[in-house]
Amino acid sequence: MVQGIVNWSTELNEEWLQNYVDDWVAFYRKHTKDGEVASYIPKLQEANPHHLGITIIGNNGLEISSGDVEIPFTIQSISKVISFIVACMERGVSYVLDRVDVEPTGEAFNSIMHIEMNQVKKPFNPFVNAGAITITSMLNGNTSDEKLASILNMLEKMLGYRPVLDVDIYESERDSSMRNRAIGYYLLETGLLESDLNITLETYFKQCSIEISVHDLAKIGLILANDGFDPQRNEEIIPRQIARITKALMLTCGMYDASGKFATYVGVPAKSGVSGGIIAVAPPRVRDEAMPFLSGCGIGVFGPSLDDKGNSVAGIRLLRHIASQWDLSIF
Amino acid sequence: MVQGIVNWSTELNEEWLQNYVDDWVAFYRKHTKDGEVASYIPKLQEANPHHLGITIIGNNGLEISSGDVEIPFTIQSISKVISFIVACMERGVSYVLDRVDVEPTGEAFNSIMHIEMNQVKKPFNPFVNAGAITITSMLNGNTSDEKLASILNMLEKMLGYRPVLDVDIYESERDSSMRNRAIGYYLLETGLLESDLNITLETYFKQCSIEISVHDLAKIGLILANDGFDPQRNEEIIPRQIARITKALMLTCGMYDASGKFATYVGVPAKSGVSGGIIAVAPPRVRDEAMPFLSGCGIGVFGPSLDDKGNSVAGIRLLRHIASQWDLSIF
Amino acid sequence: MVQGIVNWSTELNEEWLQNYVDDWVAFYRKHTKDGEVASYIPKLQEANPHHLGITIIGNNGLEISSGDVEIPFTIQSISKVISFIVACMERGVSYVLDRVDVEPTGEAFNSIMHIEMNQVKKPFNPFVNAGAITITSMLNGNTSDEKLASILNMLEKMLGYRPVLDVDIYESERDSSMRNRAIGYYLLETGLLESDLNITLETYFKQCSIEISVHDLAKIGLILANDGFDPQRNEEIIPRQIARITKALMLTCGMYDASGKFATYVGVPAKSGVSGGIIAVAPPRVRDEAMPFLSGCGIGVFGPSLDDKGNSVAGIRLLRHIASQWDLSIF
Amino acid sequence: MVQGIVNWSTELNEEWLQNYVDDWVAFYRKHTKDGEVASYIPKLQEANPHHLGITIIGNNGLEISSGDVEIPFTIQSISKVISFIVACMERGVSYVLDRVDVEPTGEAFNSIMHIEMNQVKKPFNPFVNAGAITITSMLNGNTSDEKLASILNMLEKMLGYRPVLDVDIYESERDSSMRNRAIGYYLLETGLLESDLNITLETYFKQCSIEISVHDLAKIGLILANDGFDPQRNEEIIPRQIARITKALMLTCGMYDASGKFATYVGVPAKSGVSGGIIAVAPPRVRDEAMPFLSGCGIGVFGPSLDDKGNSVAGIRLLRHIASQWDLSIF
Repeated sequence: MVQGIVNWSTELNEEWLQNYVDDWVAFYRKHTKDGEVASYIPKLQEANPHHLGITIIGNNGLEISSGDVEIPFTIQSISKVISFIVACMERGVSYVLDRVDVEPTGEAFNSIMHIEMNQVKKPFNPFVNAGAITITSMLNGNTSDEKLASILNMLEKMLGYRPVLDVDIYESERDSSMRNRAIGYYLLETGLLESDLNITLETYFKQCSIEISVHDLAKIGLILANDGFDPQRNEEIIPRQIARITKALMLTCGMYDASGKFATYVGVPAKSGVSGGIIAVAPPRVRDEAMPFLSGCGIGVFGPSLDDKGNSVAGIRLLRHIASQWDLSIF
Repeated sequence: MVQGIVNWSTELNEEWLQNYVDDWVAFYRKHTKDGEVASYIPKLQEANPHHLGITIIGNNGLEISSGDVEIPFTIQSISKVISFIVACMERGVSYVLDRVDVEPTGEAFNSIMHIEMNQVKKPFNPFVNAGAITITSMLNGNTSDEKLASILNMLEKMLGYRPVLDVDIYESERDSSMRNRAIGYYLLETGLLESDLNITLETYFKQCSIEISVHDLAKIGLILANDGFDPQRNEEIIPRQIARITKALMLTCGMYDASGKFATYVGVPAKSGVSGGIIAVAPPRVRDEAMPFLSGCGIGVFGPSLDDKGNSVAGIRLLRHIASQWDLSIF
Repeated sequence: MVQGIVNWSTELNEEWLQNYVDDWVAFYRKHTKDGEVASYIPKLQEANPHHLGITIIGNNGLEISSGDVEIPFTIQSISKVISFIVACMERGVSYVLDRVDVEPTGEAFNSIMHIEMNQVKKPFNPFVNAGAITITSMLNGNTSDEKLASILNMLEKMLGYRPVLDVDIYESERDSSMRNRAIGYYLLETGLLESDLNITLETYFKQCSIEISVHDLAKIGLILANDGFDPQRNEEIIPRQIARITKALMLTCGMYDASGKFATYVGVPAKSGVSGGIIAVAPPRVRDEAMPFLSGCGIGVFGPSLDDKGNSVAGIRLLRHIASQWDLSIF
Repeated sequence: MVQGIVNWSTELNEEWLQNYVDDWVAFYRKHTKDGEVASYIPKLQEANPHHLGITIIGNNGLEISSGDVEIPFTIQSISKVISFIVACMERGVSYVLDRVDVEPTGEAFNSIMHIEMNQVKKPFNPFVNAGAITITSMLNGNTSDEKLASILNMLEKMLGYRPVLDVDIYESERDSSMRNRAIGYYLLETGLLESDLNITLETYFKQCSIEISVHDLAKIGLILANDGFDPQRNEEIIPRQIARITKALMLTCGMYDASGKFATYVGVPAKSGVSGGIIAVAPPRVRDEAMPFLSGCGIGVFGPSLDDKGNSVAGIRLLRHIASQWDLSIF
């Protein structure tokens, strides 16, 4: 890595920053060997475990990309952020939060026990599978394509283009995710589903199979960093209250059962997915006066080699390093 | 309450602000009837359930107090914040976090199950009793008075005076808290305690019995809001990294199993205790440019009537209202 | 009730015995008001909560029936006894018990948690739903009708006639039991199912819907009391080892999470179902020399008003009374 | 092992039987290497893992001993059987069972979770530590020696001599068993203890440290096999109802979380302890007509090498073999 003490508050030229990020990506790429790619569906297992890429888009116009940023991947659990936002916009925040709680939990990410153990009989939060499936069932539309359109419309507004599905992944998830079907029937039993189960699950599998890039994740992060406002097109995409609640949820529940550690050691709202993507959100802060080259940013990371919590093993370390170097923590 | 639309960004004179806060305290005082004072030790049960008081100390010198701010009360679980900070300063952050995890949990605040269910055999976080007792066992000193001195020294540095114990409460807790003794023996069994059990528990009961005021809580909150720096005496009290980790923990785990809801609906790092105290921390933010009368603040609340999670029932609602009116959320 | 001290070891004529049983049924019928009929499917809810009937068939030829013995009802969970026996006969005991454990559990009868919490990843026992569905998946046959035939063949051998399905109940269960579908998909995820899920569930819903009478239950009980040998037709129906393992399972796991209490207070192998049926097995014992009028017996009970564990509220008390009076406990 | 097909119903001379048992002990002694001696206190760890001994005392006067029957050992958890019997005799069965439930559980033997998870707030059964400590607190006496005397009196009546404590083991348990102290304080918190905690725990540690032999265990087993009646001295030691409830509890909860497997594969009431002792009870049955050389028996086993459930690894296999050969199962 580039040696020496860096005073980030000094204005750096873009080339220098790019060099630093390139160095860090090169360094943390070695950490990809400490994890494994997701294996529960064959298509995900084909991912190259050595891949690591990052895009950072700052509020001041700076954009840095480094590593394997050209590889498209499926959005997976990061779609839970989008469906939560859309459901809140379509139904109202209180409608959604009356049906899904917002408490983090120390348990593993896809446990059925979650639902059973919360005495108020609501899924623990929108980012456990039970909560996410419940939220998908609330989306407008009578078919899975209509429901999916709600999500794709939001993504199109955010990204400026309409993402497509990876049909292989979708079919693979649809045919193999027996645990999500189990959760679905459990939700049906407890009366939490607001749509037909098959339509809900089909939508859920489709939303997880949306193809995305690290640049897309960084752009979504930038919008969230600005409380739902897109500074590049000068337009509010998400109502402010919903954007902020979403960030609170990402901070407390976004990284599976490593959420507490991520909040403590990295300190920014984030959400990961089993394909290796992470979206991270660094809002502008008073301290950013000391870092004029960013002044708030969105970050997209891709690194399909996962740790035992289901998070990108190198991605998390890279984010921790950057957050520490550039003092991105919201705390 | 004072009617009309308020534009808080307009500079308000201090009298107006005081009037608003007085109104809110009067309004939320009615909510004290929705809870009950803690009953597990007789002395706590003597608290007046109708009490509600608040002090807000802003970075810009503004200080507002309203309601029952003259009533001293014991710090209880809020002392876990202080002992965590002291242990990190005495032993180093990584030493402490190697022994106590930082994951929130959906379970009730004093459950022994916490320890058993975390596979790595560490208490879930420093704010569940098992974690707090483990941390107290790490404090410097060979006697409970020496260990307590570590905490009192820190409080004296923060507050400018050395708080005293409420001896009745201390003796009451020492003689009645069988659950904490159970937890203590469990920790001894698992090898987590770093001091003699009786000395550790004695220290723990003493630290919970330190007498404090809402003004004290607001002052501690102000120091945390400034990353450990006391703006009033121009002095660093807590190393920056430790102050920020503490805030991350408060946000994810500070309000028992309502922590997720507090993060979502109020959005500031906070810690509550069963005597009815809450400390809340609103760091300065870019958005505060719109609220020059505060520019970051510490808040102390006291309201001994508790909800079923163990948090001040009126205090939480008052904080939610203020955070919403003045846009204090860190998200 | 018939008053006076009774010396049951004195030979009583059949009329006297009948009078006693009639008295007891009349007395415990009043207890039917302490429970409620199962409500999870409409057809079950139509049951008359005041019904209570019993048939006792002794090894020595004595047969006593009293109360509502003419009402047919569906076998429900009692079918788990039959499917377990058939699977053991078709596959071998060790094949079956390699895939389903035999440990009782303090948890509720249909919990999904059961599967997750047993570290060896097997359903806790053949009588929790997860275990029963796994066992149904092992039955011979490629269709649900072929699999069901295995069960009906066994029942025909035991009863001398081929029972029929209550099609309304079957369709109702098939269309409403979302929890069993949830369990089914969970089993599919964990690789425990040995047949197609839909065929397995269809079979399971059919086997639960077999129509039966208290006399039938008493007859099955008599065969189990004789270690699988039918004393009336002088023929072995179930291999001895399988019959005895079945009784051990009934004793430890047969009455949902009241199994321990039933073993302690009644003391005979038994299995209940949500339609209100109970099958109880009292093997011949040395002590029966003192009770020559029975010398081992099978008992069938029907009382659709259920307690909060899912067992016939009056049926359990009637069985406890009879077991105590006639000293039926195997202990 | 002795070869050939054995017809046990043929009267065998005592020498032959002795030869068979000697063979089996020699064979299963090899299995001692599949386990480990208890290590939680140093004194227990000194046990010789290769030891295996058995004594069988039949109702007809036959007594067979084989292997390491001369080694004294501490009674440990088998004392829970005695304290339960004594408490029922002193307080009445319903008093005891109102305070401790009788449900088996799939959980490990000394879990604190047991208490918390049973909604009625009673320990799951008298043989988990929480239940046993609660029962010890009910024993007559104001000091631990007085309470212990209740247990020693009962043992003296059963055995014809008054056993002594292994003081080293007692002191070791007293000083090291932090988990039992944790359970004790938890019971104190929930109001379940009926005596001073320290006196209760002292009694509990003493009762576990009573020195015993396999012959003693066999004799106690014989008395239980005869419903509390000692056939050798022609005297009732335990009331019949209590003896039978005790056997029901042993069958459903006696072998930690292998109780279900032991009931299924061996089929007799039994209780084990971590020093490697097992007491097994085979009541006389109709089938015993075929085995006149026993006609009901008590069995004591000692084999300090334990399996992962805490049961004597070779002892369980030896018992299974004997129960199968001689058809001892009560089912």
